Amino acid sequence: MNIELINTGSELLLGRVLNTHQQWLCRQLADRGYVVTRQVAVADTGADIQQAVREALGRADLIITTGGLGPTSDDITRDLIAQLLGCPLHEDAGMVAHIEQFFAGRHRVMPPSTRVQAMIPAGAVILPNPNGTAPGLAMTVAPNAFRGAGRRSLLVMLPGPPRELRPMFTDSVVPLVTREFPLADEFVCRTLKTTGIGESVVEETVAGPLKALTDTGLELGYCARTGEVDLRFVAHGMKGAALVAEAATISRRLLGAAVYGEGDDQIESVLVQLLTARGETLAVAESCTGGFVANRITNVPGASAVFLAGLVTYSNAAKQTFLGVREETLAAHGAVSEAVAREMAEGARQRTGATYALATTGIAGPTGGTPGKPVGTVFLALAGPRGTSVLARVNRYERETFKFVTAQQGLDLVRREAGGGK
Amino acid sequence: MNIELINTGSELLLGRVLNTHQQWLCRQLADRGYVVTRQVAVADTGADIQQAVREALGRADLIITTGGLGPTSDDITRDLIAQLLGCPLHEDAGMVAHIEQFFAGRHRVMPPSTRVQAMIPAGAVILPNPNGTAPGLAMTVAPNAFRGAGRRSLLVMLPGPPRELRPMFTDSVVPLVTREFPLADEFVCRTLKTTGIGESVVEETVAGPLKALTDTGLELGYCARTGEVDLRFVAHGMKGAALVAEAATISRRLLGAAVYGEGDDQIESVLVQLLTARGETLAVAESCTGGFVANRITNVPGASAVFLAGLVTYSNAAKQTFLGVREETLAAHGAVSEAVAREMAEGARQRTGATYALATTGIAGPTGGTPGKPVGTVFLALAGPRGTSVLARVNRYERETFKFVTAQQGLDLVRREAGGGK
Repeated sequence: MNIELINTGSELLLGRVLNTHQQWLCRQLADRGYVVTRQVAVADTGADIQQAVREALGRADLIITTGGLGPTSDDITRDLIAQLLGCPLHEDAGMVAHIEQFFAGRHRVMPPSTRVQAMIPAGAVILPNPNGTAPGLAMTVAPNAFRGAGRRSLLVMLPGPPRELRPMFTDSVVPLVTREFPLADEFVCRTLKTTGIGESVVEETVAGPLKALTDTGLELGYCARTGEVDLRFVAHGMKGAALVAEAATISRRLLGAAVYGEGDDQIESVLVQLLTARGETLAVAESCTGGFVANRITNVPGASAVFLAGLVTYSNAAKQTFLGVREETLAAHGAVSEAVAREMAEGARQRTGATYALATTGIAGPTGGTPGKPVGTVFLALAGPRGTSVLARVNRYERETFKFVTAQQGLDLVRREAGGGK
Repeated sequence: MNIELINTGSELLLGRVLNTHQQWLCRQLADRGYVVTRQVAVADTGADIQQAVREALGRADLIITTGGLGPTSDDITRDLIAQLLGCPLHEDAGMVAHIEQFFAGRHRVMPPSTRVQAMIPAGAVILPNPNGTAPGLAMTVAPNAFRGAGRRSLLVMLPGPPRELRPMFTDSVVPLVTREFPLADEFVCRTLKTTGIGESVVEETVAGPLKALTDTGLELGYCARTGEVDLRFVAHGMKGAALVAEAATISRRLLGAAVYGEGDDQIESVLVQLLTARGETLAVAESCTGGFVANRITNVPGASAVFLAGLVTYSNAAKQTFLGVREETLAAHGAVSEAVAREMAEGARQRTGATYALATTGIAGPTGGTPGKPVGTVFLALAGPRGTSVLARVNRYERETFKFVTAQQGLDLVRREAGGGK
């Protein structure tokens, strides 16, 4: 099966925005057994969009376009595709009513230009948009001038805003695609998320013991990102689910606490769940990570049940005022030291009453390194009911990656101490 | 001029990683007057890469590929393109020496597989890679079977890792492209960055007053992202620089303090520069933004000169312990209130001795809203030498966007108070 994704928008080709649609849609499709063959981005000008769609219609079973369904002058995808396919547009009364209700519900006047979004190409199926005014559209193109006789293509047009595109994809496009293109085989996909070990270690640990399974059809995939490695299992057919389940069980046993979750889990969400279940609380005292640990934790809905406070004590004075770090310790060891990390964690734990307190102090760079403590040097301390432990690391990355990796190490330290992965 | 970008990598089509190369390369090229016409992503399999390159060679003057130059089994771009063009590969002695030195300098053993990166297609120009082992390659394809007689294409192959690709592009590809494809006209591009006003307000404010300039060749572009709007000026020809300069001067005067910077400026970097120049300092007290304001400030190299501390007082107890917020105030007004925001800011300022202290308290959601204080309600307080001011906003966004927008409003509040944009 051939799937092509066409992202329209001049701002993509001017490099003003990141194409997050590509990753999100490719991931959603791949995890359901539909791998995108090709992704194309073109400007929202007539010739470019029509050329890209025409080429895709000559090759692909499923074509998904994003963007260009709105009410402004550069929203031309719907009109151009209708023109390319020779489908007249007509105003859909139900869509006009939906748009009118959308504005009425928000006590806003409906701009007349918005009405153009109710224009539907003949033969198109409307994909409802509860989060906006532009409906998605799906059209079956068959038989056509673009592909050989008897070959059909499904062409799906989605609106550009992510808060409209994503629920529309999940609620309307997934059922349509699975109905129109049933997989020949059952498809099973599962991803274990690991941290604290490198890609080659993950591979060396599991590849041998899983050989009997890969020989019978299990596919393994490794994806290394900064500070974490995904291990992906894919299998087809009736025995696929059993193969993947066995592979996951073996891998979890071999990788132990390095596995922090599955699928879309993030280490901070796993940690918040873990602490919530245990009725425990957390405080953080950050120097070099500068609030990034607190930020990641507070991105998790419900974090307030377990997260008491973050003290971003960037200056030495703040370390003394808010955490009770002693002037002598700072003078004797310097702010970036095991001793200061320890006092920061213990001070935060004592002053907040949290079950655990995590502290970070290090040299994020690009300046501030010394021969004995190069840029990237970091001390992570964890104070908890069983005492205080300190981890020393050298994270040689540019500033923001340094903060990410250090935060990852810190969150993982708390997760393991709180029994995660056991 | 027709420019195509081909990103190779199965992980792109499986949706495991974001395609940051697209934005970065498109932006770098566009800001120099070279707009990418089409971007394509394909898996790193032979047929897909060769098909994409063959099609691009039929259309484009400049083709840039990313990825697939490394030493592992899925790094096949170099070999496939050499095969497609009928260019034999030979081992380059200079490249072998570079790779050997790269490993020797890091006291690491050179894996034998690495040597494949010294294989160079006949006629290719080597683009040095000081940050890795795989060189970039540039080949002029002319006249060829793909395009009409006399048409030449420049094909540039770049390695995948961003820390290798980016300096190679700036140091080697930009000089090559500007030499091979001199712009017919001078090209001038400048971007003003604004915050606190919407895209339509920016357009309404400047479009009329700039009409005389747009009539004589100035191009205006607007790009709205969450919490900010870019205003882009482009002009060609000998008078381009003067046109853009006049447009920027007029727009800065009309938009006033809403303009926080230009080009790649971020509001946090502008704020750190501003405070550094004024010899002033900052502390933040965050509830609903959960450390995100501190995190953004500490992403800026040199932030430690002005940023004293961030107090992420998520719990009521933490607000009392670390900021001295009074129990009566919390009881009478609730944690999300003007009164608590004020006490948070004043407490942070008093306890850190900072020139300015910013406080945020609000309801990030998805739960926690009430009829009187819906999800999205936020109070921002700024305490400074001229007293304390409080801003109330309702930021109706999902959780992470709420944090971003609120942080943006807070950073802007400090920037304006410290004289930014004047």
